[in-house]
Amino acid sequence: QVTDAPAFGKGLFNLVGKDSTFTMKIATRMQFLGVASWQKEEGGGLINPESNYLVRRSRLKFDGFVYSPKLEYKLELGLSNRDMSGGSELTSGSPRYIMDAVVMWNFYENFELWVGQTKLPGNVERVVSSANLQLVDRSLVNSRFNIDRDMGIQLRHKTNLFGDVVMREKFAISQGEGRNVTGDNLGGYQYTSRLELLPFGEFKGDYTGADLERETSPKLMLAATYDINQDAVRNRSNQGSYMEIDNGTGFYETTTKTLFVDAMFKYNGFSFMGEYAHRDANDPLAKNSDGTLTGDEVQVGDGLNLQMGYLLKNDWEVSGRYTTIKLDENITGKSPEDQYTLGLSKYIVGHKLKVQTDISYLNVDGGTDEVMYRLQLDVHF
Amino acid sequence: QVTDAPAFGKGLFNLVGKDSTFTMKIATRMQFLGVASWQKEEGGGLINPESNYLVRRSRLKFDGFVYSPKLEYKLELGLSNRDMSGGSELTSGSPRYIMDAVVMWNFYENFELWVGQTKLPGNVERVVSSANLQLVDRSLVNSRFNIDRDMGIQLRHKTNLFGDVVMREKFAISQGEGRNVTGDNLGGYQYTSRLELLPFGEFKGDYTGADLERETSPKLMLAATYDINQDAVRNRSNQGSYMEIDNGTGFYETTTKTLFVDAMFKYNGFSFMGEYAHRDANDPLAKNSDGTLTGDEVQVGDGLNLQMGYLLKNDWEVSGRYTTIKLDENITGKSPEDQYTLGLSKYIVGHKLKVQTDISYLNVDGGTDEVMYRLQLDVHF
Amino acid sequence: QVTDAPAFGKGLFNLVGKDSTFTMKIATRMQFLGVASWQKEEGGGLINPESNYLVRRSRLKFDGFVYSPKLEYKLELGLSNRDMSGGSELTSGSPRYIMDAVVMWNFYENFELWVGQTKLPGNVERVVSSANLQLVDRSLVNSRFNIDRDMGIQLRHKTNLFGDVVMREKFAISQGEGRNVTGDNLGGYQYTSRLELLPFGEFKGDYTGADLERETSPKLMLAATYDINQDAVRNRSNQGSYMEIDNGTGFYETTTKTLFVDAMFKYNGFSFMGEYAHRDANDPLAKNSDGTLTGDEVQVGDGLNLQMGYLLKNDWEVSGRYTTIKLDENITGKSPEDQYTLGLSKYIVGHKLKVQTDISYLNVDGGTDEVMYRLQLDVHF
Repeated sequence: QVTDAPAFGKGLFNLVGKDSTFTMKIATRMQFLGVASWQKEEGGGLINPESNYLVRRSRLKFDGFVYSPKLEYKLELGLSNRDMSGGSELTSGSPRYIMDAVVMWNFYENFELWVGQTKLPGNVERVVSSANLQLVDRSLVNSRFNIDRDMGIQLRHKTNLFGDVVMREKFAISQGEGRNVTGDNLGGYQYTSRLELLPFGEFKGDYTGADLERETSPKLMLAATYDINQDAVRNRSNQGSYMEIDNGTGFYETTTKTLFVDAMFKYNGFSFMGEYAHRDANDPLAKNSDGTLTGDEVQVGDGLNLQMGYLLKNDWEVSGRYTTIKLDENITGKSPEDQYTLGLSKYIVGHKLKVQTDISYLNVDGGTDEVMYRLQLDVHF
Repeated sequence: QVTDAPAFGKGLFNLVGKDSTFTMKIATRMQFLGVASWQKEEGGGLINPESNYLVRRSRLKFDGFVYSPKLEYKLELGLSNRDMSGGSELTSGSPRYIMDAVVMWNFYENFELWVGQTKLPGNVERVVSSANLQLVDRSLVNSRFNIDRDMGIQLRHKTNLFGDVVMREKFAISQGEGRNVTGDNLGGYQYTSRLELLPFGEFKGDYTGADLERETSPKLMLAATYDINQDAVRNRSNQGSYMEIDNGTGFYETTTKTLFVDAMFKYNGFSFMGEYAHRDANDPLAKNSDGTLTGDEVQVGDGLNLQMGYLLKNDWEVSGRYTTIKLDENITGKSPEDQYTLGLSKYIVGHKLKVQTDISYLNVDGGTDEVMYRLQLDVHF
Repeated sequence: QVTDAPAFGKGLFNLVGKDSTFTMKIATRMQFLGVASWQKEEGGGLINPESNYLVRRSRLKFDGFVYSPKLEYKLELGLSNRDMSGGSELTSGSPRYIMDAVVMWNFYENFELWVGQTKLPGNVERVVSSANLQLVDRSLVNSRFNIDRDMGIQLRHKTNLFGDVVMREKFAISQGEGRNVTGDNLGGYQYTSRLELLPFGEFKGDYTGADLERETSPKLMLAATYDINQDAVRNRSNQGSYMEIDNGTGFYETTTKTLFVDAMFKYNGFSFMGEYAHRDANDPLAKNSDGTLTGDEVQVGDGLNLQMGYLLKNDWEVSGRYTTIKLDENITGKSPEDQYTLGLSKYIVGHKLKVQTDISYLNVDGGTDEVMYRLQLDVHF
């Protein structure tokens, strides 16, 4: 018995429940990564080679509507060891298996209420699915500043300002400690606001890498996110390590603010994505209740990421990225870093079946420079 | 390509294997919970607010028959962090991902033999699926006394005594340490016997909360379970913490007995569920091999839970619950507790799509009273 | 709504993507195991009974081709606690949920390139799926010597030498630390080469236990594997415990070599499987950087496993196994062991629905002998 399925890349099943009482698209994906890296000697040679081969990401996804097309949902599970990592006592000692579990209710005109765990409306690079990246993986700006997923509610709205100009507003209130936390809320809540402006109208590629649509007219999204995590207990807002105090009997709390300004541009195979990030905290130096320093500090500072690519007629893409990170050296003790990446991608079936490779040069101010080479294969049903 | 699926709430797939060699219903569900709680000041005000938002439960279920309709099976996986919690060295250091994995063989007339891991025939409240509860979650009686799931065999039988009167007998022999244990059996086995009497015949709602069937004649199940866990090593029979001795090199063993008497009544939208629980142990105070106390003790004592609800015509339900727990204070050092809960549910598509909320007042004898508010959304395909 | 599914044992779904852009077979399985064991007293009586009941294995499998029939893939997930065990910091603190995630590309004639995580071309007993075993579980030779799964690439080729004679060559380069490792490669790489000779041609049962095909002419596979794990850090090549040095700040590295010579024979319901294993290491005694012994040692030595079975007309099979293990006693301090196993299997629907039982006698030279009885039920959709 053979079951007809969608074309490759369109999911495994597109279920429609009897009397259209629900729909569900079921999909899965695998991402294989090989990494080799070297440190650069004073003299210029490459030393200390390291390598790593892994199933970088693997997912199982369920989405659709239930009861009414106005009530959508999404459930995404992470299958790989990296996907599930980050478990602790605060996640009931269990792996972080659920990525997204969210219900989205279009309760009135262009308003949507989201309830559950999913990505916060943070920097564009983070919200681009890891399935749809332009280079092998996200930039250092993202790994140092992104606000990832969290549990809570989101209110989303969009409006057509005039002509083609569209504005989208996204607000979130969340627990502020990241995904899969099962314990009581620590510190205060996290408040995220994002405003997006699409001067040439909405476009399919606003949240994907590469211009696979080959837009025939210029398309642009300009956006800014401001995030306040009240009395945050982790050193990168709702991410990073927990700042323990008093020998692990409590947590240091300080209000942490993150700002993102980003842009996504697509036209005729050319794509550009840029983002600036800034993090600040009321008092970034973690202290025990007696005022002594714990040694932890909020990772405050700035980051800038600029990347672009050009998609050739034969679905090969050449891309480049420049990333610079300047954490506050007085507070974090970390030197400025610049990274230059050159990427090459072959989109065999778009982002669904692709081979990507990139080579990066990391310049650490006053430190050891590094070279990294990566090769990745993606299969997304 | 679109695949026809059952109506919402009836599963994602109802597979029938070629030549009816097997069937499988595949289903999934998600439960989103928000909790806020406060402590009550001497003066009457509410202080120390806590809150918690989480994917409380999420499951993937497979059930049907294989080879012959007389050989049924069930596999249920827990996807949320709370579902998977409880892993330890005794579960091979892995999360407790499998909830149920059981084969049920109707080998002769009304006899069934069950092999594998599934719920023991314990108190009715526990056996009601967490998908079909009347209030947001189960009562304190359940959390303190229930015997949950275990690995072993069960023998089940039912007989029509006379008229409509049905009697069901359920016996289980299990490892006695709860689900997903992979190590050798500690202490002795657990023996569970349950007798159910249904004076007005079998009915669909015997193991579900609320009278969604709106029974046109009164329906009742009266039952009692007696459970003996020989040389139990955990402080709530096959649940609770392990009672370690001699600096973690062994376990305290004492035979623990649990009694449940419970009832489920349904009629015309009205439902009542009551249960009494009692736990005793041969020697509840855990001792090292030299006779010194370890500080652990079996949670012996009594509990009573009474709850009822009325389902309005518009599928809103008002429900109330009274729970009292009296652990043996001399042994456990725990004060008596009473909890009063008022619940409100909207069954949009029965238990499959529902919103439930409840508010509870906990009175702790000589301790700090607490108020708890909960709101929950269930989506069960 | 009912969905037509394959016959029992042929998977749950056989998806064919639109325009044959992909295929996917989805399947699941469960294996229930009960074990009872005793030690043998000097006088001959059995003492210290132990028992254990568990879901021994449970899997979810996805395989097929993508884009072109020449590009195959396989994803297999382990659901049971034993399946997922072995997580550590080196697996990102996550359970080892993914068994196989591999892409297989038939890039030229009889050549295949495999990329990802899957079984290495090691001893035949290991490569036989745990779903298709002749006895309840694999032998002691396998548990002490097998090289299991790893992450890397494999090159496979086969050629028809002359007449029916087929030769298959398999080469693998892998990380050398086993499956689901996410950290950088420790020590060097692992190189595995296997050569298989099939003098009477290829046959379906080359990698399955029992002759369920009831071959009408004799079928044989003769093979040898040689495996070099350069600077291995675990005490059984890419398996076993990590050999930590200098108080856990590093790992002892020594090149470890494993040799397997094995055979599989099938004819008319009769089956024979034999394998010889030998492990050696450059310096099997683990040393701290100051040269002091850590107490760990590579498990060097020899093993031999011989087993055979005869399948009766009514699909019952009687089988027997003799296993002997001789680790180097001077180095490992472990005594020689011999194990004798007698098995009985009823293949209700081949390996897909079967009941297997076996009883083993373990003779430990100068130690305590043991008797083990096992009973297992397999349900494989």
